[in-house]
Amino acid sequence: MKVAIVLGSKSDMMVAEKCKAVLDEFSIEYTLRIASAHRTPETVIEIARMNYDVYIAIAGLSAALPGVIAAHTVSPVIGVPVSGKLNLDSILSMVQMPGGVPVATVGLDRGDNAALLALSILSLKDEKVRKQIIDYRKKMNLKVKEDDNEINR
Amino acid sequence: MKVAIVLGSKSDMMVAEKCKAVLDEFSIEYTLRIASAHRTPETVIEIARMNYDVYIAIAGLSAALPGVIAAHTVSPVIGVPVSGKLNLDSILSMVQMPGGVPVATVGLDRGDNAALLALSILSLKDEKVRKQIIDYRKKMNLKVKEDDNEINR
Amino acid sequence: MKVAIVLGSKSDMMVAEKCKAVLDEFSIEYTLRIASAHRTPETVIEIARMNYDVYIAIAGLSAALPGVIAAHTVSPVIGVPVSGKLNLDSILSMVQMPGGVPVATVGLDRGDNAALLALSILSLKDEKVRKQIIDYRKKMNLKVKEDDNEINR
Amino acid sequence: MKVAIVLGSKSDMMVAEKCKAVLDEFSIEYTLRIASAHRTPETVIEIARMNYDVYIAIAGLSAALPGVIAAHTVSPVIGVPVSGKLNLDSILSMVQMPGGVPVATVGLDRGDNAALLALSILSLKDEKVRKQIIDYRKKMNLKVKEDDNEINR
Amino acid sequence: MKVAIVLGSKSDMMVAEKCKAVLDEFSIEYTLRIASAHRTPETVIEIARMNYDVYIAIAGLSAALPGVIAAHTVSPVIGVPVSGKLNLDSILSMVQMPGGVPVATVGLDRGDNAALLALSILSLKDEKVRKQIIDYRKKMNLKVKEDDNEINR
Amino acid sequence: MKVAIVLGSKSDMMVAEKCKAVLDEFSIEYTLRIASAHRTPETVIEIARMNYDVYIAIAGLSAALPGVIAAHTVSPVIGVPVSGKLNLDSILSMVQMPGGVPVATVGLDRGDNAALLALSILSLKDEKVRKQIIDYRKKMNLKVKEDDNEINR
Amino acid sequence: MKVAIVLGSKSDMMVAEKCKAVLDEFSIEYTLRIASAHRTPETVIEIARMNYDVYIAIAGLSAALPGVIAAHTVSPVIGVPVSGKLNLDSILSMVQMPGGVPVATVGLDRGDNAALLALSILSLKDEKVRKQIIDYRKKMNLKVKEDDNEINR
Amino acid sequence: MKVAIVLGSKSDMMVAEKCKAVLDEFSIEYTLRIASAHRTPETVIEIARMNYDVYIAIAGLSAALPGVIAAHTVSPVIGVPVSGKLNLDSILSMVQMPGGVPVATVGLDRGDNAALLALSILSLKDEKVRKQIIDYRKKMNLKVKEDDNEINR
Repeated sequence: MKVAIVLGSKSDMMVAEKCKAVLDEFSIEYTLRIASAHRTPETVIEIARMNYDVYIAIAGLSAALPGVIAAHTVSPVIGVPVSGKLNLDSILSMVQMPGGVPVATVGLDRGDNAALLALSILSLKDEKVRKQIIDYRKKMNLKVKEDDNEINR
Repeated sequence: MKVAIVLGSKSDMMVAEKCKAVLDEFSIEYTLRIASAHRTPETVIEIARMNYDVYIAIAGLSAALPGVIAAHTVSPVIGVPVSGKLNLDSILSMVQMPGGVPVATVGLDRGDNAALLALSILSLKDEKVRKQIIDYRKKMNLKVKEDDNEINR
Repeated sequence: MKVAIVLGSKSDMMVAEKCKAVLDEFSIEYTLRIASAHRTPETVIEIARMNYDVYIAIAGLSAALPGVIAAHTVSPVIGVPVSGKLNLDSILSMVQMPGGVPVATVGLDRGDNAALLALSILSLKDEKVRKQIIDYRKKMNLKVKEDDNEINR
Repeated sequence: MKVAIVLGSKSDMMVAEKCKAVLDEFSIEYTLRIASAHRTPETVIEIARMNYDVYIAIAGLSAALPGVIAAHTVSPVIGVPVSGKLNLDSILSMVQMPGGVPVATVGLDRGDNAALLALSILSLKDEKVRKQIIDYRKKMNLKVKEDDNEINR
Repeated sequence: MKVAIVLGSKSDMMVAEKCKAVLDEFSIEYTLRIASAHRTPETVIEIARMNYDVYIAIAGLSAALPGVIAAHTVSPVIGVPVSGKLNLDSILSMVQMPGGVPVATVGLDRGDNAALLALSILSLKDEKVRKQIIDYRKKMNLKVKEDDNEINR
Repeated sequence: MKVAIVLGSKSDMMVAEKCKAVLDEFSIEYTLRIASAHRTPETVIEIARMNYDVYIAIAGLSAALPGVIAAHTVSPVIGVPVSGKLNLDSILSMVQMPGGVPVATVGLDRGDNAALLALSILSLKDEKVRKQIIDYRKKMNLKVKEDDNEINR
Repeated sequence: MKVAIVLGSKSDMMVAEKCKAVLDEFSIEYTLRIASAHRTPETVIEIARMNYDVYIAIAGLSAALPGVIAAHTVSPVIGVPVSGKLNLDSILSMVQMPGGVPVATVGLDRGDNAALLALSILSLKDEKVRKQIIDYRKKMNLKVKEDDNEINR
Repeated sequence: MKVAIVLGSKSDMMVAEKCKAVLDEFSIEYTLRIASAHRTPETVIEIARMNYDVYIAIAGLSAALPGVIAAHTVSPVIGVPVSGKLNLDSILSMVQMPGGVPVATVGLDRGDNAALLALSILSLKDEKVRKQIIDYRKKMNLKVKEDDNEINR
């Protein structure tokens, strides 16, 4: 399987669902795991060492999860900050990685964009996925145009 | 060529240099372009449509550049927010992309991490790059260990 | 028609309604469009090139819409940041435009003020609109004075 | 004269200079005034009642100046927040105007963009100014393209 | 009458109620007015020139009200920032006054503390008020001690 | 003596100097003390119990000083937040006092405004001070008008 | 008794409950007190001087409580910032203590983590508590693993 | 040895020096290590498993270090956020730990307070350290009083 979705906690499931929905639509296999950088660090390391093609790490608060995964794999790691009372905490914890170990951060609660970024990465070696993204974009483009037409009817 | 580095302005060159240094060390070819989402939008679109394997977009302030590139390509786009008087402006402009068009945001002024993320993406279809990253990581790991030894001498 | 109201997404309609209400009260014709800087960029450029007298661009998150419109027209562009989980993201994305391409940013969700600013701009060449604004201000002034009287009864 | 530039304090002169440079380049007449919403409020009201075509108000900290001008004129008022120890204070004081009295806020210290926005507003009734902006944009566009060429030589 | 409570808008009434409750408890006469720095500026100036002993100005968003009152009176002016979508906007607009014209800012929505601060100021020339504050504090002190006892029963 | 200026640390002296300069200009006697809510809390309480007419408390970081003084006196307490690496820390620590114990917060590093607010409070029972403030304001008003004239020469 | 839990106000009880639940699970005796740095400062000092082994201080807004306790004891003081309209106020008021008087700040509303930190401190001289924490961690670790298994069933 | 000081990077040495100075003054043995949660994670885990009595972890940016140490030890872990371009990143990354794994966060760059907190923790089982802290506090108290006397001479 190509993509690992890792959740810091069961409570992040709603964000993961958006991620799964996109990957399912593209018929891309993925593993879904719950593993916490602070509560089950050995599981996080174990998953990171499996060297999936792409990692999507979803976490809130002091969101160390994507960074810890990135420390144990050279595969690209995408971080999805989860919203809470502050929001800036999870965003900055993911974006502000030190030199040498990047995390590709997407928007707050954006499980969908994490999946699309993963697909975009996979498309570099899989022309079929590339075409699927182009189709997805076209549908999205049409949907906005329909909305545009609708309000002008 | 595989990687396009796009700068929103000549004044972002210092961040681009960190990016170039890493790509040069890995002997990865890249194109360096200055193109502004607001001053030369047609150039931005033109570059985006060339479908490089990976885009690295460096911009400050209301950093629309990576988002506009992402709107015109399905290749992965990495955004590097450039520091200024506020810092949160460029970070949030890049991270908070709407659903459907992701930008992979790295840390403030982190041209180095943008390059490493690009390499990590390229490594999925190029085993040699993967090995180079592993070596890079080892050197980095050794450097920290030497620092650790040095202060304990 | 003189004014174009452009929404980044159908979900921004509630802010657009405040805008429409004011323009309707002034009997000013306007076009209402949904166009996204990231999902239908070609529509955005097309609308921008129509050179309406004034543009009102309504968008949330990484609100690139007014900036991208401003890049393709020399008419004044008013940006209305839409509230969300962070709020500072849409405000700063609009306010912090680089040199050369200004966006006139109004307050969070202030579709009403965007319309009034558009009218104020149009009033420079249309004395009737100027008088309408003066009347509008008087009514507003009276309304506050009535509120003032009411609580002192 | 068509444009009034109002500074909240002599110390905001550096931001006003950027504004003057653009207006001078376009040969647009302007009045430059120092008037404080808190120290010389009667002067502010007096200037506001002169009904210039466009107002540019430059102020830092709790930047009430553009809002107070806007309260006494129906002409468009552009606010330029001046940087300081916090930056968010002057930006939010200008952007977050209550319903009924808009201020067109541009970026931190962006005297240049305030001038360009003023010109864009004036261009609605002065075709010559419109052409000048188009030329200005072309030069700006060429400058970025030259920068782009230069780094690729 | 000694105290003027000025609200920027009828919608700030809930914060004013907390203010009134304290002044009523102390049997201090006050005037309650609705006056907006941007919609009825002439009323604001008129009230400011009446030179009440103390002003309490309640406002949200770009809360210019206390500053504009302070510009037209030498009596002490207390500002109460009202909560909204951002909160920092009203706080910083009140706190960050320029040199020469202070506003005494209290906490977000703290109509009660504004009244107590006003009473504390009046107590300097009215020993009776001073004694009332001491009694108020004692009751408050006792209330906390009762809460403390209660949870330990 | 009527006014007590209390500094949380010797390093806040530069802000206190602005305060002293104003009080000296008005020939108002004051006591200058260094006392820390965390390092010499007994001194803080001792000074608070002396019941000066007005307290000015200057502190940075987690600026508990004005609040602790306010807890031990019913006289008005003015807080001056001192700038540092964050700035929001000292501002919010002072502004956001709980119900019952207000602190009158002025702007970051605004020792001058703290003194003027203290004088404004004292003016309620001392007509001479009131006249001095009116004169001070006039001079300030003239100074801005001179600046205004100067740039138009 | 070893641990004192001090609440700035009865309204912070919900955060204290999380704290109590953990201490009860570990069968650690504690005292629960309501005492306010601003309303009952003498009670705060009295409790601080009792020199409990560890203090847990729970407070919102301008959360001076843990700092004032720390000023009167040399025992470790843990601060729990309580959420409200701003959140950054209570966090920064606790974290940003001046040199010499530290407060050990935990996350927003994290009564549970405050208790666990207190236990971790007590474990240094009580091997039994150390074992209990290890067991607690194991249970937590197992719980996450069960969640992980469950979503993969 | 009782205390481990762990630096995320050699560049954090200046903050560590403040920490060392206090521990040296108290004649407390400590180990100084450089170990990065992202570059040498295995060293971090190794150090965490040595179960020092107290850990002091110093890190900037996305400061995962104290959290990762806390995940592998039940000893108390103190986090010192290091200042940078944002400051809120390192503070929030440390403070906002998830339930179950607390980090005791002190102020930005406050190596001194981290050491004092560590000593305060050690003092629970070492009466000598307790007395040393009391002496340290007295000296600090005297120093402030001398400063107080000096400015009043």
